[in-house]
Amino acid sequence: MSLIVQKFGGSSVANAERVFNVAKIVTDTYAQGNDVVVVVSAQGDTTDDLIAKGQEINPNASKRERDMLVAAGEQVSIALLSMAIEKLGFPVVSLLGWQAGFQTSSAHTSARIRRVVPNRIRKELDKKRIVVVAGFQGVSRYDDITTLGRGGSDTSAVAIAAAMHADLCQIFTDVEGVYTADPRLVPNARKLKDISYDEMLELATLGAQVLNNRSVEMAKKYNIELEVLSSLVRAPGTIVKEKSKMEKMLISGVAKDTDVARVSVIGVPDEPGFAFKMFSKVSAKNINVDIILQSIGRDGTKDISFTIPLDKVDDVKECLQEYIENIGAKDLLIGTDVAKISIVGAGMESHAGVATKMFEAATSEIKVSVLINKKDADRAVTAIHEKFFEE
Amino acid sequence: MSLIVQKFGGSSVANAERVFNVAKIVTDTYAQGNDVVVVVSAQGDTTDDLIAKGQEINPNASKRERDMLVAAGEQVSIALLSMAIEKLGFPVVSLLGWQAGFQTSSAHTSARIRRVVPNRIRKELDKKRIVVVAGFQGVSRYDDITTLGRGGSDTSAVAIAAAMHADLCQIFTDVEGVYTADPRLVPNARKLKDISYDEMLELATLGAQVLNNRSVEMAKKYNIELEVLSSLVRAPGTIVKEKSKMEKMLISGVAKDTDVARVSVIGVPDEPGFAFKMFSKVSAKNINVDIILQSIGRDGTKDISFTIPLDKVDDVKECLQEYIENIGAKDLLIGTDVAKISIVGAGMESHAGVATKMFEAATSEIKVSVLINKKDADRAVTAIHEKFFEE
Repeated sequence: MSLIVQKFGGSSVANAERVFNVAKIVTDTYAQGNDVVVVVSAQGDTTDDLIAKGQEINPNASKRERDMLVAAGEQVSIALLSMAIEKLGFPVVSLLGWQAGFQTSSAHTSARIRRVVPNRIRKELDKKRIVVVAGFQGVSRYDDITTLGRGGSDTSAVAIAAAMHADLCQIFTDVEGVYTADPRLVPNARKLKDISYDEMLELATLGAQVLNNRSVEMAKKYNIELEVLSSLVRAPGTIVKEKSKMEKMLISGVAKDTDVARVSVIGVPDEPGFAFKMFSKVSAKNINVDIILQSIGRDGTKDISFTIPLDKVDDVKECLQEYIENIGAKDLLIGTDVAKISIVGAGMESHAGVATKMFEAATSEIKVSVLINKKDADRAVTAIHEKFFEE
Repeated sequence: MSLIVQKFGGSSVANAERVFNVAKIVTDTYAQGNDVVVVVSAQGDTTDDLIAKGQEINPNASKRERDMLVAAGEQVSIALLSMAIEKLGFPVVSLLGWQAGFQTSSAHTSARIRRVVPNRIRKELDKKRIVVVAGFQGVSRYDDITTLGRGGSDTSAVAIAAAMHADLCQIFTDVEGVYTADPRLVPNARKLKDISYDEMLELATLGAQVLNNRSVEMAKKYNIELEVLSSLVRAPGTIVKEKSKMEKMLISGVAKDTDVARVSVIGVPDEPGFAFKMFSKVSAKNINVDIILQSIGRDGTKDISFTIPLDKVDDVKECLQEYIENIGAKDLLIGTDVAKISIVGAGMESHAGVATKMFEAATSEIKVSVLINKKDADRAVTAIHEKFFEE
């Protein structure tokens, strides 16, 4: 008998039919003799609908009240899923974040889980009940409802798995697992049997969002075996664990990210501290900087380029314009017509040759990224996938 | 400075405009220097919509999960109202039933409030915040979410008022107060300045449902002054208190109840215990019996008639059919084409003449009810109102 945590996202419980589909998966797992804890998100567009309702009333509402509002979404879905499980004839109980022992920071709308105290869950499992837990939400030390931010239900699931030393944490999604490339783009893309935490983290940051990043970091920290699999197709998914043993491949995936922009600061005087100060300013605005390039110009200045998320273009302009004028740099150029293509693989660490095949610098030992014109992005992914996986 | 509890029903917060209307009433009260605790129901049809969603999944779902489901409704409304109050520039905090200290029995879907521990509410009031509390819900000793049953938000409001020794508990509705008769039926009906708890209780049970009965009983027990008033028209409402001092009227209202049926058991042998046993059986099915009549027949048997709620007709048939055959009664007749007309007034206690004006028995010292044909109900109310209030 194992303890299995199963997490289902909002689209998996979007309507009554899907709720019963999930109930079937859960009760099958239970009927095989396992203890089952289920973590569910709010149904379909519920969270967005609730946010829109709040926006209509007050776009500047406090984060505490926003959390109060959206947390109602999971309350509905855990109740409905439990009702479906009851209908199938199995013992079940639903628990809200605070009932399930999710103690978080007070950073409303993006709270961190401080710890999970699973006493109640354990008591219910001892009574042989399936336990359905509201993902995405918790309670602060002040007894206020908090939420973990988008994708937080993955983190909820891994946190329970860690707190209860679960044997497996299954993350059900609308894809069948982790692929060597986006299957909608590359027909020959194939599903990986397994992948390491580090590879998964790199893929997640690269626009191949299958799992929430914080959840993978937490799984790595507590060594929780994850399985990414489909809630609609019954088939083994991809296992995420410390070392990928099954696959001996050099690289495990190719990813495309078109939500990037290139920022170039032209003619920065070549004096110590200028670049550091510039990146400090950007980072103070919570803008994540990726690929950084410096090129020395002929007149003793340098050009500094880096990538940022596409939606941060205005923020970057606002935060750098004055500074680069003060230090006497020549220009600030923004390129939005770019895409980032990356290959990820733990095998690269010991194969220096891989990086030399690409022409720009890598920011990780298991990832190589290049910036290309957006219009060429799909062809590039296909070509790279052919080169590494189909030859 | 007073402590005022204000309760708003679902229709008062049905959309963004109405939410702001409520926010305005609340903040006006606060701006006058009062501490304000607001109790809100779920928006408009939210509760019904949630119940329908649950029914679709499992019509026989456990009551615990039904409570989990519908309690999400008030969570949304307290967050939205708080956001609106923030928008108007006032300090506010929303609290769920469990956060507000509503400790209830474990009788899911119709839990009783055991006590209110208002520590958190008091702390928030000390910080000069308006406190918005979710009505209708609480938490059991097992930390499970409970609901109080329909109309429970009135009870929530009175319970807070009692626990905190509030100076006034205002129940905002879609009518302007308590009237001498239904104003839609009797154009000359007039709003009462005040009414006693007992009169209010009799009126509430008679289909003139303005206040939830349990809330009036609780207000009477803890001597909480209630005011029934409109959330849309700013005007003084009707005060409900121990003794109605302003009004020296013999009777305070005429009410019609068409949701009744008459049950007649014909030819019951006149032996001790038969009638008692029969009513025990009915009461065991949670069927409320009102007006009871016995008439002695010529052959040593008697006929027993009584009224029940219209939706209990099948239940009564099912629970009595066999028994009346066993004791040898002749027939069980059900009349659904009847209406109950009642007059209520504390003044009747000392005016025996009132009861004699009506031709059937009263079940209360301050109420007289008659059963008539349904088609005559409206004419009867108008005629009685004319007789007592317009002459």
